[in-house]
Amino acid sequence: MVTKSDYLHTPVEHIDVTQFNPVPLVEAMGRTAFTARDLARAADITHRMVADRDCGVILCLAGSLVSAGLKKVFADAVRCNMVDAIVSTGANIVDQDFFEGLGFRHWVGEEKLRSGMFDAELRDLHIDRIYDTLIDEDELRTCDDTTRVIADELEPRPHSSREYIRAMGAYLDKNGCKTPDSIVYEAYRADVPIFCPAFSDCSAGFGLVAHQHARGDGPKLSLDSAKDFYELTQLKIANPTTGLFMVGGGVPKNFAQDVVVAADVLGREVPMHKYAVQVTVADVRDGALSGSTLKEASSWGKVDLAFEQMVYSEATLAVPLLFGYAYHKGAWKART
Amino acid sequence: MVTKSDYLHTPVEHIDVTQFNPVPLVEAMGRTAFTARDLARAADITHRMVADRDCGVILCLAGSLVSAGLKKVFADAVRCNMVDAIVSTGANIVDQDFFEGLGFRHWVGEEKLRSGMFDAELRDLHIDRIYDTLIDEDELRTCDDTTRVIADELEPRPHSSREYIRAMGAYLDKNGCKTPDSIVYEAYRADVPIFCPAFSDCSAGFGLVAHQHARGDGPKLSLDSAKDFYELTQLKIANPTTGLFMVGGGVPKNFAQDVVVAADVLGREVPMHKYAVQVTVADVRDGALSGSTLKEASSWGKVDLAFEQMVYSEATLAVPLLFGYAYHKGAWKART
Amino acid sequence: MVTKSDYLHTPVEHIDVTQFNPVPLVEAMGRTAFTARDLARAADITHRMVADRDCGVILCLAGSLVSAGLKKVFADAVRCNMVDAIVSTGANIVDQDFFEGLGFRHWVGEEKLRSGMFDAELRDLHIDRIYDTLIDEDELRTCDDTTRVIADELEPRPHSSREYIRAMGAYLDKNGCKTPDSIVYEAYRADVPIFCPAFSDCSAGFGLVAHQHARGDGPKLSLDSAKDFYELTQLKIANPTTGLFMVGGGVPKNFAQDVVVAADVLGREVPMHKYAVQVTVADVRDGALSGSTLKEASSWGKVDLAFEQMVYSEATLAVPLLFGYAYHKGAWKART
Amino acid sequence: MVTKSDYLHTPVEHIDVTQFNPVPLVEAMGRTAFTARDLARAADITHRMVADRDCGVILCLAGSLVSAGLKKVFADAVRCNMVDAIVSTGANIVDQDFFEGLGFRHWVGEEKLRSGMFDAELRDLHIDRIYDTLIDEDELRTCDDTTRVIADELEPRPHSSREYIRAMGAYLDKNGCKTPDSIVYEAYRADVPIFCPAFSDCSAGFGLVAHQHARGDGPKLSLDSAKDFYELTQLKIANPTTGLFMVGGGVPKNFAQDVVVAADVLGREVPMHKYAVQVTVADVRDGALSGSTLKEASSWGKVDLAFEQMVYSEATLAVPLLFGYAYHKGAWKART
Ligand SMILES: NC(=O)c1ccc[n+]([C@@H]2O[C@H](COP(=O)([O-])OP(=O)(O)OC[C@H]3O[C@@H](n4cnc5c(N)ncnc54)[C@H](O)[C@@H]3O)[C@@H](O)[C@H]2O)c1
Ligand SMILES: NC(=O)c1ccc[n+]([C@@H]2O[C@H](COP(=O)([O-])OP(=O)(O)OC[C@H]3O[C@@H](n4cnc5c(N)ncnc54)[C@H](O)[C@@H]3O)[C@@H](O)[C@H]2O)c1
Repeated sequence: MVTKSDYLHTPVEHIDVTQFNPVPLVEAMGRTAFTARDLARAADITHRMVADRDCGVILCLAGSLVSAGLKKVFADAVRCNMVDAIVSTGANIVDQDFFEGLGFRHWVGEEKLRSGMFDAELRDLHIDRIYDTLIDEDELRTCDDTTRVIADELEPRPHSSREYIRAMGAYLDKNGCKTPDSIVYEAYRADVPIFCPAFSDCSAGFGLVAHQHARGDGPKLSLDSAKDFYELTQLKIANPTTGLFMVGGGVPKNFAQDVVVAADVLGREVPMHKYAVQVTVADVRDGALSGSTLKEASSWGKVDLAFEQMVYSEATLAVPLLFGYAYHKGAWKART
Repeated sequence: MVTKSDYLHTPVEHIDVTQFNPVPLVEAMGRTAFTARDLARAADITHRMVADRDCGVILCLAGSLVSAGLKKVFADAVRCNMVDAIVSTGANIVDQDFFEGLGFRHWVGEEKLRSGMFDAELRDLHIDRIYDTLIDEDELRTCDDTTRVIADELEPRPHSSREYIRAMGAYLDKNGCKTPDSIVYEAYRADVPIFCPAFSDCSAGFGLVAHQHARGDGPKLSLDSAKDFYELTQLKIANPTTGLFMVGGGVPKNFAQDVVVAADVLGREVPMHKYAVQVTVADVRDGALSGSTLKEASSWGKVDLAFEQMVYSEATLAVPLLFGYAYHKGAWKART
Repeated sequence: MVTKSDYLHTPVEHIDVTQFNPVPLVEAMGRTAFTARDLARAADITHRMVADRDCGVILCLAGSLVSAGLKKVFADAVRCNMVDAIVSTGANIVDQDFFEGLGFRHWVGEEKLRSGMFDAELRDLHIDRIYDTLIDEDELRTCDDTTRVIADELEPRPHSSREYIRAMGAYLDKNGCKTPDSIVYEAYRADVPIFCPAFSDCSAGFGLVAHQHARGDGPKLSLDSAKDFYELTQLKIANPTTGLFMVGGGVPKNFAQDVVVAADVLGREVPMHKYAVQVTVADVRDGALSGSTLKEASSWGKVDLAFEQMVYSEATLAVPLLFGYAYHKGAWKART
Repeated sequence: MVTKSDYLHTPVEHIDVTQFNPVPLVEAMGRTAFTARDLARAADITHRMVADRDCGVILCLAGSLVSAGLKKVFADAVRCNMVDAIVSTGANIVDQDFFEGLGFRHWVGEEKLRSGMFDAELRDLHIDRIYDTLIDEDELRTCDDTTRVIADELEPRPHSSREYIRAMGAYLDKNGCKTPDSIVYEAYRADVPIFCPAFSDCSAGFGLVAHQHARGDGPKLSLDSAKDFYELTQLKIANPTTGLFMVGGGVPKNFAQDVVVAADVLGREVPMHKYAVQVTVADVRDGALSGSTLKEASSWGKVDLAFEQMVYSEATLAVPLLFGYAYHKGAWKART
């Protein structure tokens, strides 16, 4: 009989960009064409925003990047002071990063699983699939439940996701971070705020629903997404020069871009984001936010035109080259 | 000198599927191949979920669908009892639908604007661009501000987005809905709940930030996204047979799928969503949620395998055919 | 035991655009946004090129359009004088259209076959798969062989593909066209030339290899692709106002665009193609020809800028709407 | 006044994969997910086909790869005996590679040119655009004309494109190859055949039309694409173990796959292609050849299932990593 361990045997291993120096390759790409040239320009802008010591760098994460082996890239970026705030989907931060921090792993799924023909079998085995990667659903329920435990211990009032995620970092600090290179844990230690503007839309949502259900009409924790927005806007006001490094699009991209307008609404004129890089496969033609050009964002007064670059590539290919470039150029050494 | 009115002269007009009967066309497509065959199957499933009188239909909206002229399709679907709940991005509901309800319009942008070469000029004119569509930014600020006014009048406690959006509907009822076919207004009248799980990520976010800023340390309205999730989960529990009609992916898709698991977390075994249709241009290969197959969702225990269909098409082409089909098949006449 | 007939039971049926009038739908789409608005503009340009009685309309076909159920659309276009020349891949003309003319059919493949998990089984059963459509490989070999028979009967000299395809039409005329609405046969009857610039890259290639092999060192038929180019260039010279209706990209798109330059090489200054519509899913970002914009083609002096429109959509959705529009607008009635 | 030199100042420089060792990076990618994992598997298969000394490697090239800076990658592959035959579009071989061999260059186009807003100006300046790369049209006419000169000197009989391209190599040998790393020239020296099955669809087409026009009814060169197919089929028969490395899809992909069937038509049972790698951005959902899976090709009896991998990426990103991997693994050193 097929069991879980027939599927869950080879863990995803996080790529370590400190080990490969792509600077000469990326520079050579800059003299070619198409996506390679775009990628080289984006690498240069990434380097510039890190080298600009006045620049607050906001890292935006959508998609399933942590389960896909990019966790250490972002944890290293935090450790090297290359990142001053993170805006992410909940999946990356809770279901994937915090989940691994609790000691669990993601697993390499055989290629044939992508066909969808085995999903009923996976379901019976309590295995969840993300394209070509597998998760033990029972472990995920432990993760959900841990988020409830954290909620139970927090003050029963509206929290921003940032406050809550900081409590997750504290939890890992107290209970031990069981796998290395956790974004949540490194951000906790470096005091880098993490925002998940759609926070209930992840494993934490399950924990919070359980928390609220248990509390009934009594005082309970709630998640104030307006507070998130208010907090990030205040960061922008305090830190006028900013750069966006966006992997994927979705809510994090829009949320981080919008703070320029929000500052204006609060009566504070702040400059647009000075630097902006986005890695995405989303297309411009559906008119949706993910694929909208950074030029379009400039019509909204959100992103400046001088240093912006889209890279149309799946993230697992482009992100190691981009962060590898910025890491090996070394401008982060002068940041604090 | 170029002025706003040089750009903003031709309004987007919402397509009216009650006027075109695509049933024979769609049925013929079902005997061909590729996307046409997929679309025909999705149309059939849409018809089935409407014809299933036990089925609670959840409409999920991402992208910029209202500005793109699809508002009346969804308003008609609400009016015809084809929809029992809506999960959307804030952009569709607040910046676009409520915005039009206040009497404003979206404008047809000339094709050349897509090139991005005119965005600096648009910025100077206070015109915002969504691909090939234009918005008067000053009008949008009025919309932002109206959301603040609504927040100021609500009880200073955590609200779900559903509660807040209902107040927006009441506002339109009281002050007059200035353009016809508002989703917010029709849903208010028909008592169809609308959820925006990432509610601060839209025009309302600006209003709420202003509200919270003005209130300072005093009592203030907050937006509880966990409450949203709890409420939609309770709807699922009350309404075991459910179907999803998803336009685009993003947070709405995931949020609506997750309630099956949330019910389980609350100790209630509920069936997976029985019907699921998604129209999207997102690709499966980035491993992100928007493009993930509905089969993959079944590995997570969220969507059943019997009646699911993806349609890979930009929404403005596929949605009029799909809803036109369901409308003209007429099964909604038996719904209440 | 699984047999061929377990797979090959439901034939693809060709869509009949004379039966559905999409004019009001397409016109309404023109007042919306995104792809729908593009499609409406493309429909208008299609109508204009048909209404322009001086305009020679060149239909370009790539991909697997005939197997996908679009054969009758193009056969009707020929019958209605909407098309003056066709440039196609060999697959559409030989493997699919002529194949059906010989009495064979394409079959609807179950959705699960797309997963690729059944391809070994299909191979054993001599069934070939095109995404979700199936072909009896033994029948295809009959088609290959018929192309050899035709080659054997032709004069042993260089032929353009046009000459050869005309002989295929004559073959159907003599032996009976066994399924209705053959493009090859209708074009034969209407004296509309068909060019396949990469003619050996299809079923006919097999027949021709067999022919040349059998002839050994003796006189044999050869396929002169330069002659094709020369002939189409002469058509352009004779017919200065031209329009391109392109489904897919590939060789047909480039070949038909290039005749403007070829005329110039022959010392004849001819105008660029005045009208150009392309339906494709190819992306611009790979720099390849299929997705290159029609504006880019104008830098090469091939396509005029006034009436050009790309429609980014899979053909089975867009083509019935576009040709349905042109058909029901009826301008073809004035053509001869 | 704007002149050509305002646009044509920075040449595209061809990337040199011998200078960067991506082996550790690619191996690490193999333990992650999505496209990175696919790329690592494709790199491994590429290495295997090179290491298999019985394997004839067929390199298939579509798109605009040479103008995009990948010329040296393929020239190096030929020099290192990693390639035994090439099947390409004419654009890569004639308009781009041979063109550079004549001493001309491709130029980096500014990013804004992609918008299409400058194409009329480019046209007036005789500059042709390929997405973000520029060509001097007058130089291209020289290239066209050189192909005519070559045709004039060849025997007036049907030629395969391979014969003709060999004459182009001889031309470069005689007149000097004016820029290094020409694929045509290196293939000429190494006796690696190059096939362009749609040969008239490129710069050579213009030369050949001029040639045939000048010859009138007299004896003239013709281009026999059936002969191409026959010749490549004979190579396959002589060389039963084969591998395909395909960049892009289109005619080269189909043509190279088809020889398995053609051999069968000639009564020779040959094995399917044992190895197959394809780098493409084409999607499977349009049912066209470019994006069709290599599994689908196995239903046609063309490609074996054991060692096949698609990499969905724009070529300028993936090809340097794939060939860099194979180069630095060094298995080519044992090939002759
Ligand atoms: N779209 C806007 O102009 C806009 C404006 C203000 C705020 N926002 C906010 O940004 C966030 C993300 O917005 P989003 O939903 O645009 O993100 P998104 O771009 O991530 O869209 C989600 C997915 O839906 C699909 N999709 C969207 N439009 C489609 C269409 N027309 N046809 C087919 N598929 C389509 C795409 O596959 C996409 O991947 C939301 O919170 C929203 O409120 C968006
Ligand atoms: N397609 C087949 O099944 C098949 C079978 C036998 C031989 N061939 C041969 O292979 C060669 C290349 O074939 P091809 O034309 O399929 O190549 P292709 O995949 O390169 O298609 C060309 C372009 O047309 C567009 N396109 C194709 N089908 C489309 C659709 N349904 N909707 C929208 N856009 C679409 C795509 O953008 C694609 O990039 C030809 O010589 C052909 O004769 C193809």
